[in-house]
Amino acid sequence: MRAYLQPAIFGATGYSGYELARLLTRHPAAKKPLLLRRNDESGGCNDLSEAYPQLAGNGGFPLETFSWERMKSAGVDVMFFATPHEFSRELVPEAVSQGFRVIDLSGAWRLKHSANREVYGFAAANDACDEAAVYGMPELHADEIWDATLVANPGCYPTSVILALAPWMRAGLVDLDHGIICDSKSGVSGAGKQPTPKTHFVEVDGDFSAYSVFGHRHTGEMLEQLGVDSGSLQFTPHLLPIPRGILSTIYVKLAQPASAAELEQVLREFYAGKPWVRLFGAARLPQIKFSLHTNYCDIGFSLSPDGKRAVLVSCLDNLLKGAAGQAVQNMNLMFGCNEKEGLQ
Amino acid sequence: MRAYLQPAIFGATGYSGYELARLLTRHPAAKKPLLLRRNDESGGCNDLSEAYPQLAGNGGFPLETFSWERMKSAGVDVMFFATPHEFSRELVPEAVSQGFRVIDLSGAWRLKHSANREVYGFAAANDACDEAAVYGMPELHADEIWDATLVANPGCYPTSVILALAPWMRAGLVDLDHGIICDSKSGVSGAGKQPTPKTHFVEVDGDFSAYSVFGHRHTGEMLEQLGVDSGSLQFTPHLLPIPRGILSTIYVKLAQPASAAELEQVLREFYAGKPWVRLFGAARLPQIKFSLHTNYCDIGFSLSPDGKRAVLVSCLDNLLKGAAGQAVQNMNLMFGCNEKEGLQ
Amino acid sequence: MRAYLQPAIFGATGYSGYELARLLTRHPAAKKPLLLRRNDESGGCNDLSEAYPQLAGNGGFPLETFSWERMKSAGVDVMFFATPHEFSRELVPEAVSQGFRVIDLSGAWRLKHSANREVYGFAAANDACDEAAVYGMPELHADEIWDATLVANPGCYPTSVILALAPWMRAGLVDLDHGIICDSKSGVSGAGKQPTPKTHFVEVDGDFSAYSVFGHRHTGEMLEQLGVDSGSLQFTPHLLPIPRGILSTIYVKLAQPASAAELEQVLREFYAGKPWVRLFGAARLPQIKFSLHTNYCDIGFSLSPDGKRAVLVSCLDNLLKGAAGQAVQNMNLMFGCNEKEGLQ
Amino acid sequence: MRAYLQPAIFGATGYSGYELARLLTRHPAAKKPLLLRRNDESGGCNDLSEAYPQLAGNGGFPLETFSWERMKSAGVDVMFFATPHEFSRELVPEAVSQGFRVIDLSGAWRLKHSANREVYGFAAANDACDEAAVYGMPELHADEIWDATLVANPGCYPTSVILALAPWMRAGLVDLDHGIICDSKSGVSGAGKQPTPKTHFVEVDGDFSAYSVFGHRHTGEMLEQLGVDSGSLQFTPHLLPIPRGILSTIYVKLAQPASAAELEQVLREFYAGKPWVRLFGAARLPQIKFSLHTNYCDIGFSLSPDGKRAVLVSCLDNLLKGAAGQAVQNMNLMFGCNEKEGLQ
Repeated sequence: MRAYLQPAIFGATGYSGYELARLLTRHPAAKKPLLLRRNDESGGCNDLSEAYPQLAGNGGFPLETFSWERMKSAGVDVMFFATPHEFSRELVPEAVSQGFRVIDLSGAWRLKHSANREVYGFAAANDACDEAAVYGMPELHADEIWDATLVANPGCYPTSVILALAPWMRAGLVDLDHGIICDSKSGVSGAGKQPTPKTHFVEVDGDFSAYSVFGHRHTGEMLEQLGVDSGSLQFTPHLLPIPRGILSTIYVKLAQPASAAELEQVLREFYAGKPWVRLFGAARLPQIKFSLHTNYCDIGFSLSPDGKRAVLVSCLDNLLKGAAGQAVQNMNLMFGCNEKEGLQ
Repeated sequence: MRAYLQPAIFGATGYSGYELARLLTRHPAAKKPLLLRRNDESGGCNDLSEAYPQLAGNGGFPLETFSWERMKSAGVDVMFFATPHEFSRELVPEAVSQGFRVIDLSGAWRLKHSANREVYGFAAANDACDEAAVYGMPELHADEIWDATLVANPGCYPTSVILALAPWMRAGLVDLDHGIICDSKSGVSGAGKQPTPKTHFVEVDGDFSAYSVFGHRHTGEMLEQLGVDSGSLQFTPHLLPIPRGILSTIYVKLAQPASAAELEQVLREFYAGKPWVRLFGAARLPQIKFSLHTNYCDIGFSLSPDGKRAVLVSCLDNLLKGAAGQAVQNMNLMFGCNEKEGLQ
Repeated sequence: MRAYLQPAIFGATGYSGYELARLLTRHPAAKKPLLLRRNDESGGCNDLSEAYPQLAGNGGFPLETFSWERMKSAGVDVMFFATPHEFSRELVPEAVSQGFRVIDLSGAWRLKHSANREVYGFAAANDACDEAAVYGMPELHADEIWDATLVANPGCYPTSVILALAPWMRAGLVDLDHGIICDSKSGVSGAGKQPTPKTHFVEVDGDFSAYSVFGHRHTGEMLEQLGVDSGSLQFTPHLLPIPRGILSTIYVKLAQPASAAELEQVLREFYAGKPWVRLFGAARLPQIKFSLHTNYCDIGFSLSPDGKRAVLVSCLDNLLKGAAGQAVQNMNLMFGCNEKEGLQ
Repeated sequence: MRAYLQPAIFGATGYSGYELARLLTRHPAAKKPLLLRRNDESGGCNDLSEAYPQLAGNGGFPLETFSWERMKSAGVDVMFFATPHEFSRELVPEAVSQGFRVIDLSGAWRLKHSANREVYGFAAANDACDEAAVYGMPELHADEIWDATLVANPGCYPTSVILALAPWMRAGLVDLDHGIICDSKSGVSGAGKQPTPKTHFVEVDGDFSAYSVFGHRHTGEMLEQLGVDSGSLQFTPHLLPIPRGILSTIYVKLAQPASAAELEQVLREFYAGKPWVRLFGAARLPQIKFSLHTNYCDIGFSLSPDGKRAVLVSCLDNLLKGAAGQAVQNMNLMFGCNEKEGLQ
């Protein structure tokens, strides 16, 4: 009989961390997660339900001060980092060397090429961890995730873009020379819980804007995972006046004219047996609302009348399939659970 | 022939200050306002259009460092303070003693009774200014405003409550022993431009909450202006997930049963010739949207079938009739302009 | 060993009906519900996932044409009506006479006094059903619900008002002669799925309004359940620019001055062992967001400094505790399940 | 001395028509517009302020039954059609033959090529009017507008796309063989005032979706005005959960690498002396909010580090520069007024 997993979470007070705490608390194969306070955290709360009163009535969610002793005495099996990448970059290597398996939701370990990592400005190199880290996208890397020590949970934007493009690109259907355009739109929780002028209600409500054009740091993940260079894929993020959700509109020229049925077939085969991707085919496109509060990435497309160009549309909940949900999906793979467990 | 007024504004980068700058810039009797930077202001901008790019294309809006010399050389006629009350409390007395006429949008000078002022915790008393200050609600105090040196511009909530209640109360129609209940709802700009957890888009959107029950500092204004004590009027503010606008639902027991026609008549007589109050009578109630981006306070009511109880509903734009618009209305009265000038 | 329940739902395409279908589908003690199409329904869909693509990936949700034969051959144990009250008024009596247990989410059977029922304008009297119907508020009527044949599921506004007021009123703490004021605010899904000018996004967004003052048909439920007459309780609903959730601000004069601790104690005792009411006491008030997507009714209050008046604040999700969630809670009681089953 | 213009408006109860009525009412060179009721209009109002109570306090806005006699006796100079294109297609030719100058806000007369007009499915051909109609984009066609009899006011999406692209395309800077991608996002008022499932608040709020991919009928305008074929320009509209505003993100490959300064210079020269286009250059991109409630089209861009690709961003208020504002701008040109008159 399977033993229960003991997870621990750094950063549960943030939006992704809260979702993670919520998911793990009701995960049938996991004990209640340990919630760890960073030493440098100020103004924090003693119980997660102070910051999120919606948790009331479900027992206590105490935040504890972190120490390696505590991790060991509690028998922690897996440590989740829902923290700034600088923090992950510092503490994760020690966690690994102490023998813990780690799922990191930050951008600290996602990029394989040091040139791509430059946008993050990491203080120090860490070749061992950079190399060991597995990009935690179960639909693409399940065979590496199951026994990984360090899983780099993908970014929210890259999840929506890579899952949409991977099937056709691997099948050679996309004209890479022409270049791919990814026009993505995200809700405000993607900007984090810290109040800033950019997340002020009065500024955001009724507005819409593009940002970081030609310079968003999630671009590197897309290039590496899809195996193209920066001349072949262009990514533009926008800020939607909604709390959560991402929709990516992706423009491709096909290597040669195709029918909608052929294109849909390639998607269906690629995602056969993958429970967390839903295909909308060519008949109806996904909308952000369909995927909210779920771990699904929804994918659909439209084909030009001449069959030469296609527009892929993919949607997901940036806090779930784009963060905490995918992290739990990775945990499931790492510990032999069913991929859907705790996510329905 | 009338000379053009020269206004100056402290605090133009805030939401009310910006509206004030916008209104004064196109006011037919005023020169472009001087925009003054507080010495303690950090991280500020050099031109207001940096903070509010919607101003682009309308010439420069430079922010200047404040000095009394500059005030005088520029021939400033009236100084507007759209600043925290602590700042007003400090600088306004000097402005007055230097001979400037002042319209202060903060809560610094609104309260006549020192007991009511306690909620603001002012560091020092200032009897002269407290006494000289005129409560700048033109519909009630036009006869004092025209030659006032210091006008205390009313709070947004009090404007919506006092304008709704004053006619019936002055006519003795309200049962004061029974007590009045003011249930008010405001958009987020009322909380100011400073980003805080309470103004974060993700927290506010889709939510609604009551706050400062039995303890909001605008209550004192209502009590003083309506001439009742705290046992007779109860005020509860709520936060609406919209950028601007206030709706107050006000519950009164009538001193004796009345007809809707009588009640409407009292309102119509009271507001005859007052251009910035619109009466909706008993047929249709005002909604926030009707008054947005205008200087109107809209007032309507419903009467119980037995004629014993009434519900008043009043709406206004908290940044206009609740702040900058009413300030310009006061300026108009102080300098002999038509009350509507620059506000249409 | 317990057999699985077979529920059937009329009206699953509406907002409450959809939530009901969703809840029952994953209810551990229930089989997948039969979804019934009304004969008069036009333009409908064949599968609920056509109207709610968020259901995709969870099997089929076919809509069937209704017949009593089908009800019997399928072994239906309980019929849910999430339909207009006229429809319920017509079909429910036959369902009862055919031996089915019924939970009706409409207003058809909630009111005991024929005078209160007049607002609904029912075509015909039905004394037997009017008498037999049990008001399905488990926190007040569990002892009647368990063996009821016909449960009238409470209205969304009444649930938020009655649950907040019942404990203090039953304890004689409220001055009824003074009168109670219930100022309630609801999200737009309360207005139903039918597109109207009042639910058009452009009309609602950024707006806020009162409606049906002194005339909302939910008032009768509050009066009957709390045992007061219309002179003692006044109800004003408002439309919030959010999709779902209700907050009621309730003003009471206490029969005699009390302390917050005493008042809180009465609430705690009343709701001891009631899993779907959460008390926020006097320290922090509930907000709409805390109860969204849950079956909780959250209740808190503030007391005036002199201990004479109190403001109760209650929040709930109008589609769950205010409709479908409470219906499932009633089903749990009727069929011997734990009250929390299928609602977490 | 200039005589005052007498405008008349068909369709003032719609969103664009209302804005038009509002603008013309305060236009310094125009008399109050006649508001015309279509004969087939049912359930209408007698005064525009019934549908738009925000107009209250500004005199009456009576809706009149249309007749040619009334047009002539009132001395109408210009007829605005803010009506469905079928209606315009039917009545405009008669208006022209009766000697009236017409500005039509519908899609009835915008397209020169009959193949492009097919998407509208017009019942009958009308070569004379199709030929005579001038595309009313003042920044491109001022020389034809001034003496036009029939002005086809541009669509909202095409205005945002054409104004952004025209300068670089006319200067030969864009690689047309590569193809241009226009990813546009619009607020809900673009879908009109008629309530539908697609404009229901509960459906739209918190959601975001693409629609009419490869098939939106505004595409033809873009192709004709920019002089390209459908293989060279791809347009994808999306629905934003905001009431008004459009942002277009436009992807171009440059014919040869350029510097930001060169590109900005071309824009500046093209729009020199054009008051209703604001250039944001390469430093800061426009956001929807900056242009709301104004007649500006705001344009900015970002250039890829290698200077080979650019992303143009343009914003406007779909009801003003995208409809009623541009219509007034056209009227100004047609009757010798300053282009800015009545629009500030």
